Amino acid sequence: MEHWVVGIDLGATKIRLGLVSPLDDIVSVRQIPTNAHEGPGSVVERIAFEVGALAAGGNFGSARMAGVGICSPGPVDHLTGMLLDPPNLQGLHQTPLRDLLAARLGLPVVIEHDAKAAALGDYYFGAGKGSRDMIFVVAGTGVGAAMIIDGQLFRGAHNSAGEIGHTTLDLNGEPCQCGSRGCAETYLSGPWLARRYQRLLTAAGQTATGVTGGVVAQAAAAGDPVALQVMQDAGRALGASVATMAMLTDVDLYVIGGSVAKAGDLLLAPARAAAPQYCFASVSSRIRILPTSLHDDGPVLGCAWLARQNLLQPD
Amino acid sequence: MEHWVVGIDLGATKIRLGLVSPLDDIVSVRQIPTNAHEGPGSVVERIAFEVGALAAGGNFGSARMAGVGICSPGPVDHLTGMLLDPPNLQGLHQTPLRDLLAARLGLPVVIEHDAKAAALGDYYFGAGKGSRDMIFVVAGTGVGAAMIIDGQLFRGAHNSAGEIGHTTLDLNGEPCQCGSRGCAETYLSGPWLARRYQRLLTAAGQTATGVTGGVVAQAAAAGDPVALQVMQDAGRALGASVATMAMLTDVDLYVIGGSVAKAGDLLLAPARAAAPQYCFASVSSRIRILPTSLHDDGPVLGCAWLARQNLLQPD
Repeated sequence: MEHWVVGIDLGATKIRLGLVSPLDDIVSVRQIPTNAHEGPGSVVERIAFEVGALAAGGNFGSARMAGVGICSPGPVDHLTGMLLDPPNLQGLHQTPLRDLLAARLGLPVVIEHDAKAAALGDYYFGAGKGSRDMIFVVAGTGVGAAMIIDGQLFRGAHNSAGEIGHTTLDLNGEPCQCGSRGCAETYLSGPWLARRYQRLLTAAGQTATGVTGGVVAQAAAAGDPVALQVMQDAGRALGASVATMAMLTDVDLYVIGGSVAKAGDLLLAPARAAAPQYCFASVSSRIRILPTSLHDDGPVLGCAWLARQNLLQPD
Repeated sequence: MEHWVVGIDLGATKIRLGLVSPLDDIVSVRQIPTNAHEGPGSVVERIAFEVGALAAGGNFGSARMAGVGICSPGPVDHLTGMLLDPPNLQGLHQTPLRDLLAARLGLPVVIEHDAKAAALGDYYFGAGKGSRDMIFVVAGTGVGAAMIIDGQLFRGAHNSAGEIGHTTLDLNGEPCQCGSRGCAETYLSGPWLARRYQRLLTAAGQTATGVTGGVVAQAAAAGDPVALQVMQDAGRALGASVATMAMLTDVDLYVIGGSVAKAGDLLLAPARAAAPQYCFASVSSRIRILPTSLHDDGPVLGCAWLARQNLLQPD
């Protein structure tokens, strides 16, 4: 299949597009602001322009540009091709993005949830390569997961499987903005890292402004003991969460992505240390917790893979 | 398929055998003590005697006795037919039970884990009939689950999926005998119900001896406020556990069996009340928590179903 495809990660703030060769290499990348508020017409037009620019810059030889895969924050309906109502994409709600883009480009387009696309990227081209099963955990502004079981995305009956961020790690824990309490997200998301850090500082009589998850991770990397404590607690929660997933699903491999995961071993080392405390020894001996090896390229490569699958298996 | 089959639930204390008609009715039941300590030879011989007695008492017409399904506490290897090392079946460890029984009976035999067999029973003939997905939770001396996704048992890569009893409901909770802490089992199993009840009594300056999970359930049914509190807490934990499973797997239907579940709405009403507190509203609106409708017949019917599948799909 000498198909060149474009993978597109439509995020809350930016759109990242990659031209992907038949050898699954990203040979060229372009990035533009999302500006979802401009609405579907503008966004589709700007994406089409960038796809055209990537195509014009490609050296396809006898091959051709064959298709596009795009992903976005959920909820997205991969079957109907609709962007539903992603909170961070005001302006694009209830948009038939797949069909608008296909009509504008004259190419087959496939759409997927961004965590699932990132998971497919690492599964086929990154940290999960060669594995039977893999759970990809995204820890960023929110926390979610995408599960690949025996080579297939595990979607669930309503395409809502993998909401690990709002599973319970403490029955009596802190209220989460979702209405529940003690959710994994209350330990692990960027905003919660910032909140916990500020709280500990306040308790120590100190103040800090403009704290984000990234700031906490940087402070921890610089040796700030308070920030290290926050990362340690987050890692422990991640480890317990991985342990619960492993006990329930019997999946061995956990690949961690998202902005919080950029903290690397500051997060993953305590996660690896905690997981065995929260599951059977027979299970913990099999668990592997790895960072994504693709980062921003993961969703692009996952989308490219989906675009190729879409060409192989037309509706 | 005019096949009569026998379903056998080999438990820690008793063996329950049911002759199952081609219409999936249990037409006759026999029950004997397990006495696992007598070893494989004795157990197989006694099972064979009871199967013979069931066959002799059947009115098969032109049909015939075609096969046997048997289940036992795990770990059991359904592929090799081995009972591995179930803690409650000392004397039968590392026994090729399937093949011993098949050789003795001259019939095809299939073996399965008891929770999975019970799940299949309710899925095809009981509370789960007509559902796409179902998670069967066994709450008894231990707590476990068997998952059926889109009509298939979800086994996991190592056949160990569904260990919900040892997933974490409280990161900082009480130590569990498994070595972890805050496990679902520490709220929900019979021995833990008894322990929590005795602890509350002691705190109130009272004493009790011979307390079991069943005693607590009976006391709660009789209006004992301390026992009611214990059942309420157990139900809340079950609800949170169901919520976590629903968020992760996107399964709607939870069928609850096992001895603790015999408490019925004393357990299930607080579980139904708690589940929405621990998951998204969109998810909780779909969750159903039902008691098994088959109780002791569930594993027998599940084994009968497996025996029939085994006849249809020979290795």
